[in-house]
Amino acid sequence: MKRKGQTWEFTSRPVILGSAAVVGPDEGKGPLSPDFDYIYDNLEINEKTWEKAERRLLEQASQLAIIKSELTKEQLQFFVGGDLMNQIISSTFAARKLGVPYLGVFGACSTSMESLALAALLVDTGAADYVMAGTVSHNCTAEKQFRYPTEYGSQKPPTAQYTVTGAGCGVLGRSGTGPRVTRATIGKIMDLGIKDPFNMGGAMAPAAADTLRSHFRDTGLTPGYYDLIVTGDLASVGLPITKELLHNEGLNMEETVFDDCGLLIYDREKQKYVNAGGSGCGCSAAVTYSHIMKRMIKGELKKVLVVATGALLSPLSYQQGESIPCIAHAVALEMEG
Amino acid sequence: MKRKGQTWEFTSRPVILGSAAVVGPDEGKGPLSPDFDYIYDNLEINEKTWEKAERRLLEQASQLAIIKSELTKEQLQFFVGGDLMNQIISSTFAARKLGVPYLGVFGACSTSMESLALAALLVDTGAADYVMAGTVSHNCTAEKQFRYPTEYGSQKPPTAQYTVTGAGCGVLGRSGTGPRVTRATIGKIMDLGIKDPFNMGGAMAPAAADTLRSHFRDTGLTPGYYDLIVTGDLASVGLPITKELLHNEGLNMEETVFDDCGLLIYDREKQKYVNAGGSGCGCSAAVTYSHIMKRMIKGELKKVLVVATGALLSPLSYQQGESIPCIAHAVALEMEG
Repeated sequence: MKRKGQTWEFTSRPVILGSAAVVGPDEGKGPLSPDFDYIYDNLEINEKTWEKAERRLLEQASQLAIIKSELTKEQLQFFVGGDLMNQIISSTFAARKLGVPYLGVFGACSTSMESLALAALLVDTGAADYVMAGTVSHNCTAEKQFRYPTEYGSQKPPTAQYTVTGAGCGVLGRSGTGPRVTRATIGKIMDLGIKDPFNMGGAMAPAAADTLRSHFRDTGLTPGYYDLIVTGDLASVGLPITKELLHNEGLNMEETVFDDCGLLIYDREKQKYVNAGGSGCGCSAAVTYSHIMKRMIKGELKKVLVVATGALLSPLSYQQGESIPCIAHAVALEMEG
Repeated sequence: MKRKGQTWEFTSRPVILGSAAVVGPDEGKGPLSPDFDYIYDNLEINEKTWEKAERRLLEQASQLAIIKSELTKEQLQFFVGGDLMNQIISSTFAARKLGVPYLGVFGACSTSMESLALAALLVDTGAADYVMAGTVSHNCTAEKQFRYPTEYGSQKPPTAQYTVTGAGCGVLGRSGTGPRVTRATIGKIMDLGIKDPFNMGGAMAPAAADTLRSHFRDTGLTPGYYDLIVTGDLASVGLPITKELLHNEGLNMEETVFDDCGLLIYDREKQKYVNAGGSGCGCSAAVTYSHIMKRMIKGELKKVLVVATGALLSPLSYQQGESIPCIAHAVALEMEG
């Protein structure tokens, strides 16, 4: 472990031994469909409440990730997890089922990389041999909690994002084969005063830009070092703003492929109801722990930076007229050889 | 850093360079009154909403902790914080004001020690030079969110606990004088099926017992090693249950002083409205970062184990008939010499 600024360099380069993503029907209709481990054909995920549905996605993704890493849950020392629900109940109930020591974290959609950064830190520093990181979101639990009762069918502006129904988990260990976690940059809160919860991408763009700027400042790398830099989830509104913000500071994102998990997961031409694209901490987790992992293992990608962004509002803070504090955490993944 | 089981031993023994606690009027009337850094005489904390009041407590405690550690906020590398609010907005807004990289955590009332354990891990492993851990709760935000509108004045059974209005923060560094963080045991979820949110102490007792048992198993220590073992917050119902559970497994808590932050913070004879005692992640934080720190610095206590317990329910999980998953994280503090 070496630190510079707000970036950790993991000298032992912890390995993602196994990972899994379990998603709902909308994600199953998107272009990443072949990469997911399991796709439910119903949004209820065969459960009676949206909350039970969400929990089941995480429980299943965690079980699959453990199996795919050829471990048993008894070998896992810690589970670092979180979700968007009040009091992160989905992760907690999944941790109850797992029965391993549990560190609950919250950073809205950035939770996916906050948990992976911490899991890598634990393994890198000898605080654990095996750790699982995982997050989940469900379209209907998020709609119900953050917006309107799901029965309303309320309309949305085109800047709105569509919460992904999906979970992603990764199991980290010290040695083995697979993508390695090489660095993590922990973000600061950025809040430029945006108050519109239907424009999360715009609100989160400055946080993504700040974390990317910090990452390149701390590491001395340039965007071209990575084959892919993927945010999660700025969608169609936030991604170009971030690109412009970085361009204004002399960081040329044309050097790399700069994309967004919220844009990758859906076909916005066919799935018009997703508006600007996907969101939710299940989005970046499901994309990272399936599509990106598979592309890295196949050798299509060698160096990837995942920058998960979170809009840290609550319905109450919004109702009380507060602006939306945002954050982004970046994690670098590299294949050796 | 050495790990055994679910316990971390911090070989560099990070120092709590400075700490502070800011509380409301009820806590100011309790027996620990002389130890707090600032006491508000009004539950509104001079703010217009309960949420702004809660945030102000944390902002103020964090500023005081930084000043008392003789640092500036620019020297802090990370803030690890959390609270009981949906989407931990109090910590997030405080982190926005601080402007330092932020790791949001959630473990209900156990957040106080989850954040301290992670902060100590960061300093011990070189992931940071200076880190602040802090948590907050407010009686009225908690009542409003978890129970009834505060205007109702609803009555409660004697097993109920009273959420503390208070914040506590500690700044950790690698060298200096002050209590040192020597060990941390990360807990597992325990859920024995209790569904009554007015009996949190009873629900959390098995989690406290499990973490204490794990701590002594992993470290080879016995309860008598510590001058004080303090839970936070089992109150009058949970503490004797925990004692009995441990006794049944051969751990004699009579070897030490075994107390609870929720019992220490109020005078239950005079303040009958607190029922079984205090709760909330501000309770164990305010007691630890004021009273316990001061007693350690004075030399009255040399070795203290703080076991923060969390009831990880949400109003929704309760309404849907779920039982209450609980967790406890333990952190050992030691004075040298």
